[in-house]
Amino acid sequence: MSSEGGAAAAAIADSGDPLAPLRDRFTLPGGTIYLDGNSLGAMPRAVVPALGDALDRQWSTDLITSWNDNGWWELPMVVGDRIAGLIGAGPGQVMCGDSTSIQLFQALVAGARLRPGRSTVITDAANFPTDQYIADSVARLLGLQLVRVHPSELAEHLDANTAIVSLSMVDYRTGELFDVTSITAAVRNCGAIMLWDLCHCAGALPVNLDALGAELAVGCTYKYLNGGPGSPAFIYLSRSIQAEVDLPLTGWHGHARPFDLEPSFRPAADVQRARIGTPPLLSMLSLQAALTAFDDVSIDEIRRKSLGLTDLVIAYADQRLTGFDVEVVTPREHDRRGSQVCLRMPYAYEVCQALIGRGVIGDFRAPDLLRLGLAPLYLRYGEVHDAMTVLEDVLASKAYLDPSLSLRSAVT
Amino acid sequence: MSSEGGAAAAAIADSGDPLAPLRDRFTLPGGTIYLDGNSLGAMPRAVVPALGDALDRQWSTDLITSWNDNGWWELPMVVGDRIAGLIGAGPGQVMCGDSTSIQLFQALVAGARLRPGRSTVITDAANFPTDQYIADSVARLLGLQLVRVHPSELAEHLDANTAIVSLSMVDYRTGELFDVTSITAAVRNCGAIMLWDLCHCAGALPVNLDALGAELAVGCTYKYLNGGPGSPAFIYLSRSIQAEVDLPLTGWHGHARPFDLEPSFRPAADVQRARIGTPPLLSMLSLQAALTAFDDVSIDEIRRKSLGLTDLVIAYADQRLTGFDVEVVTPREHDRRGSQVCLRMPYAYEVCQALIGRGVIGDFRAPDLLRLGLAPLYLRYGEVHDAMTVLEDVLASKAYLDPSLSLRSAVT
Repeated sequence: MSSEGGAAAAAIADSGDPLAPLRDRFTLPGGTIYLDGNSLGAMPRAVVPALGDALDRQWSTDLITSWNDNGWWELPMVVGDRIAGLIGAGPGQVMCGDSTSIQLFQALVAGARLRPGRSTVITDAANFPTDQYIADSVARLLGLQLVRVHPSELAEHLDANTAIVSLSMVDYRTGELFDVTSITAAVRNCGAIMLWDLCHCAGALPVNLDALGAELAVGCTYKYLNGGPGSPAFIYLSRSIQAEVDLPLTGWHGHARPFDLEPSFRPAADVQRARIGTPPLLSMLSLQAALTAFDDVSIDEIRRKSLGLTDLVIAYADQRLTGFDVEVVTPREHDRRGSQVCLRMPYAYEVCQALIGRGVIGDFRAPDLLRLGLAPLYLRYGEVHDAMTVLEDVLASKAYLDPSLSLRSAVT
Repeated sequence: MSSEGGAAAAAIADSGDPLAPLRDRFTLPGGTIYLDGNSLGAMPRAVVPALGDALDRQWSTDLITSWNDNGWWELPMVVGDRIAGLIGAGPGQVMCGDSTSIQLFQALVAGARLRPGRSTVITDAANFPTDQYIADSVARLLGLQLVRVHPSELAEHLDANTAIVSLSMVDYRTGELFDVTSITAAVRNCGAIMLWDLCHCAGALPVNLDALGAELAVGCTYKYLNGGPGSPAFIYLSRSIQAEVDLPLTGWHGHARPFDLEPSFRPAADVQRARIGTPPLLSMLSLQAALTAFDDVSIDEIRRKSLGLTDLVIAYADQRLTGFDVEVVTPREHDRRGSQVCLRMPYAYEVCQALIGRGVIGDFRAPDLLRLGLAPLYLRYGEVHDAMTVLEDVLASKAYLDPSLSLRSAVT
């Protein structure tokens, strides 16, 4: 396929894309193709009036009465339930708040406490660093042993000593989607607790948490959920554990009767026990507005487009980039792929910077990975095709060897 | 003094108030006298353009590059240093992020770890509930004993078993300011760690943390610092402990080299080890803008006005409210008083609701306390006097017995 023919084919794909109108729900900068929505999602237009109202009316005018009259007190559950709808969870099981690191700590301690007498916590040596660091800290606090195992080798490490297994559904570098059904079943079969980190899949693919049977999950909301920079994370407590789960971060918002201001902690009977302290309401109101970008869209449609976009990147790499020593690291099977494509190549850092210089924003993962995030709500097939032609041009021209490229890598 | 004469005297006080012009830095609703800034501070005008820029430029246009180019990565330290200047701490010791509950957990575990072999954690049975709940959870995780002692009786409970003492500088109900110098000295003399909760004093009175010698402090920013609803909290790690302090919430932002994405946690050498996960940036940018309301104001001037305002409330209560069985609970000595006045009275809940119905916003603390917060940056003496005349009228007319008063109490 010629590049021109490819552009025409991409335009045809856009014309038939049922999600194409959703792009108008976002503000995107001109002259940029944004392939980093897996780091920080683009801004939904609904955020601007929502935050205007939060400042002009809720905070500055209604002041403290907003806790009751503007729904601030209920907001973590309301937003949690909206997230629940996007991750296959019934209502009353997801609580919004804090950061993913905090929610991992909360979930790991609570999960391990559900299996007293068992001695190991398992995570993946390729898991995102914070997942590993927090698991290490929790193991130390509880006197447990932390074991690092790749998800593909998990079965041989599960035994009657396994208290909890904490894994990311999608590998943050390679974009590999693990076999979450088999893994969850194996973990539960050995009597351990399953904790999933959904950071790289919430909002991009169907998760079906309730059907999976995992007890615990956490995730961030600033990637495919587009909640805004550092928008609050979430925790899922399956209904099956809510009455017994013993959370360590016993902030007063999680109390059964928080306004009685009792001296001792008694957890709320339901998912509200996962509340901690006063949440960052401006960030949470941004998230709430951002989630309206998902209104009237099914997660299956989102997944179809996500696969279409990643297919396009992989096909382009296969057909036009192999001469540049580019390797597609992301699995080619649909059921093993998240919503990003990871390309291994020489000078990946410099290539990433050269792309940024040409308005194509992806990111770099050491030592040799270019990571392209494909956010289905707002990206066009045409843009993705154009981005790949720019990449081809950068590789063909060796523009990445330009010593003036000194931008630092963007993060998270 | 007649009520009319009092109003005239209050107007004279306003005319001589060096902080009077600061009110223009805030947006306050018409028809309201806001005496609940100790729950949620009023909105500084600077927040609106700051959040406009955060949305229109930083997030939606600059997107992921904002981490480097718009200072997002440095923001927790930049805001931390600005807070440090308001609590008597030198730069490089305060980190902004998360909620007070999370920072209490972080500080309590870390403080107890600095005193291995010691077996007790001390807090105050009258401390804010979250302080007690988190101390209880930490004691349980670390196998320590939690002891509740009133600050006035602390000396007799300090001994070689005391690992850490966690107290609030100002009692959230009564407004009593404890003898923080003597308490800190006694705790340090017995070899224990001192952790101060500054929620009810940061931004309202001089704290002099470095001079005190406390190792740890935490506080919120949405009360007298006016950061916005749920704006992120802060933690102070005195320079003396930074190299050794062992924090349990080991999120990747606190790593010595976060972007190397190493599998094991190595804490940053400085206060950055207190970073955890990605902070709620919209809420933090609101806080950063809000703190400009303190530009070119000394904390000593703020304290003088705060005492002037609380003196006015106490004098009014003494001279005109004693016939209504109203008792001033807040200490009368300046050096034992925070920036609020707490009045004990029959029907305190109903009185509070009746005041709200007349545009005077205070809050109620069970069972019989009316709590009036006096925020020196934006309140006028005239307003405070007017609020007291409304209170007198409510008490004299027994308007608080009106059964239509059914508003719930505002919180935090």
